[in-house]
Amino acid sequence: MKKKTILVTNDDGVTAPGLKALVSVAKEFGKVYVVAPDSPQSGQGHAITLNKPLRLKKVDIFKKMKNVEAYKCSGTPADCVKLGKHVLLKNKKVDLCVSGINHGSNLAINIIYSGTMSAAMEASIEGIDSIGFSLTDFSWEADFEPSKKYVRKIIKNVLKNGLPNCKLLNVNIPAISKKKIKGIKVCHQADSHWIEKFQEGKDPVGRPYFWLTGQFVNNDKNPNTDVNAVEKGYVSVVPSMHDLTKYEAIEPMKFLEK
Amino acid sequence: MKKKTILVTNDDGVTAPGLKALVSVAKEFGKVYVVAPDSPQSGQGHAITLNKPLRLKKVDIFKKMKNVEAYKCSGTPADCVKLGKHVLLKNKKVDLCVSGINHGSNLAINIIYSGTMSAAMEASIEGIDSIGFSLTDFSWEADFEPSKKYVRKIIKNVLKNGLPNCKLLNVNIPAISKKKIKGIKVCHQADSHWIEKFQEGKDPVGRPYFWLTGQFVNNDKNPNTDVNAVEKGYVSVVPSMHDLTKYEAIEPMKFLEK
Repeated sequence: MKKKTILVTNDDGVTAPGLKALVSVAKEFGKVYVVAPDSPQSGQGHAITLNKPLRLKKVDIFKKMKNVEAYKCSGTPADCVKLGKHVLLKNKKVDLCVSGINHGSNLAINIIYSGTMSAAMEASIEGIDSIGFSLTDFSWEADFEPSKKYVRKIIKNVLKNGLPNCKLLNVNIPAISKKKIKGIKVCHQADSHWIEKFQEGKDPVGRPYFWLTGQFVNNDKNPNTDVNAVEKGYVSVVPSMHDLTKYEAIEPMKFLEK
Repeated sequence: MKKKTILVTNDDGVTAPGLKALVSVAKEFGKVYVVAPDSPQSGQGHAITLNKPLRLKKVDIFKKMKNVEAYKCSGTPADCVKLGKHVLLKNKKVDLCVSGINHGSNLAINIIYSGTMSAAMEASIEGIDSIGFSLTDFSWEADFEPSKKYVRKIIKNVLKNGLPNCKLLNVNIPAISKKKIKGIKVCHQADSHWIEKFQEGKDPVGRPYFWLTGQFVNNDKNPNTDVNAVEKGYVSVVPSMHDLTKYEAIEPMKFLEK
């Protein structure tokens, strides 16, 4: 396979072990350019920075790896991709963008809040084939070794066959041992939500505060969901998109035109 | 019609004229609770605040309006909706959430970056019928008077008939005179993107910076798009959703399972 140009980013920041794991696999396929946030950006959704300038600075975090050039960026994950494509790689064709490996699941509704997936989506909007990878373990010490086999397999397959009918994949890997992972399932986003709770308290000067917490609830009984795949020990792959139109509602909503 | 409970928010902040215009219409239908950001949050996408507590403070900005209770929140638009539903209105049924009126278009791909639409989407995820309104004029002095007629008509219609097959509408209103607005079109999100550019410069101590700018490009020749409707002088209504699955790609992508 011809050497590819691969843009790598994440939302946990340039020092995250999950990013290192992803870079270590991506570099097997060509030249890797890392543009990652200089601080953690979880929950940033598709935020972009409009009202202030961004910084982009070369870092030597990956200097022991060949074919890797890395930068930290002061912006959001989506900003990283924009800067990567339009400043750093202005005159280069980018073959693939990979984002992650996220420390924590981006299953189901979490794609909406995810900086990891918004970075991957940003690349797909720009016309770049793109994949977001997440491991269902939030800890900084999460074991990314079992993930690497599947990250490698999926990147290889996508570079070879492309992404028919889509530009973006949301991949979630169960945090279990390599032996226990049963394979890959291509499936759809589970219909789910969070039951929100706010921890309420008073700050040191007695003013009230509210701190978001909550519980994830899967409402989707369909077996072909990402949540179900991961629960059963599979790596879930959801072909995704940025067209949010609910086409089935266009005709029924025509009463608004009258 | 029975008096409704309506949650109102936006992304331009609690002092925005567009919010005031929306509140002035929403209050005709019942009791209005405003929870809006204490500072402008454009481009925040679906960001939520995880790593710090939020503040919620009553304000008297709308004290001249009856049936309106207003709060400012230190978080993002999505945070405002979560706090509104789970703290302020914990024991109340919310009949409708409306977000906006945004100062500026949220047509096409801009739904992804929009704080206005992410607030509305957050409410729809929570099971509340929800509508985001935007006027295609970025200025603080934009004239919201012509919009009010259509905001009123759509809210009334949705409260009466519900939202068949969906939970969320993205409404964009052309910034033209009342006479020139031709009516309402229910349509789909245009396939579009931004050609990004970064203004590059040096800060006062000589370090480089990059500041996002760009040009909106509509690639969609289909006449039934939101961009086309607004260009033709219609108010566009796009039924929207948070399921980002590209269902047409599930079967073709099954090669990954092998």
